[in-house]
Amino acid sequence: MDVPHARSGLEIIDRAECLRLLSTRTVGRLAFAVGDQPLVLPVNYAVEGDVVVFRTGEGTKLDFAPSAKVAFEVDDIHEETLSGWSVVVQGVAHEMTDDDDWFVASLRTPTLRTWVPAAAEHWVRIVPSHISGRRLPGPPP
Amino acid sequence: MDVPHARSGLEIIDRAECLRLLSTRTVGRLAFAVGDQPLVLPVNYAVEGDVVVFRTGEGTKLDFAPSAKVAFEVDDIHEETLSGWSVVVQGVAHEMTDDDDWFVASLRTPTLRTWVPAAAEHWVRIVPSHISGRRLPGPPP
Repeated sequence: MDVPHARSGLEIIDRAECLRLLSTRTVGRLAFAVGDQPLVLPVNYAVEGDVVVFRTGEGTKLDFAPSAKVAFEVDDIHEETLSGWSVVVQGVAHEMTDDDDWFVASLRTPTLRTWVPAAAEHWVRIVPSHISGRRLPGPPP
Repeated sequence: MDVPHARSGLEIIDRAECLRLLSTRTVGRLAFAVGDQPLVLPVNYAVEGDVVVFRTGEGTKLDFAPSAKVAFEVDDIHEETLSGWSVVVQGVAHEMTDDDDWFVASLRTPTLRTWVPAAAEHWVRIVPSHISGRRLPGPPP
């Protein structure tokens, strides 16, 4: 079967494999706008189905990401060989700290570590509108 | 000497150390806007002083990043211990493929690998307006 390729020539990863790859890592990078200036910061995350969940405390992420369009990227790239993969989730971030919808409440249950010394008492989920992935081929043979 | 901390409680890395850390890696993540939707993609990069340089071919990065505000993040985070660091460069991306200013021309000389099978004939530099870094403390003792 032919594997589809992006304009860049990179192999496209299908949605099911994107979701599987997302579940293999625990640190990703969240991109969002601060006014008209993009910002990207690492976050510790968990994934439940196609919903990415993270915790955060007071700070720029909490000021600007909730209720905004965001992108979330996870990868595993070997710098020496430039082989690996990258998955990107685009969607809207929603704070769900006080949401008592059963599904949302269930998202708060995954054991999710946080690296900030200050309290990270706010839960945020990313509801995806688009999930895509690319595989890096490594060096030419 | 007291180390300054961000609102999140994370230790702030000074600019000189940010630049040193940037020079220790070769893969970072570029965040930019596609319309009103943030996107973040990995890129192979080099750094010259405080200018981040990368190559790209036809694709979304070339369509939207040049002449736009971008953020570029590099990190080294150990998932098991949640220790490590993250540095973020915010600024404007400029295509410099045909620029013959001597400094810009010198930026095209670093050996910079590219992982796309298609030609990556476009050179882009990020002129920084703000560089910041955070150190993740790892698990509490």
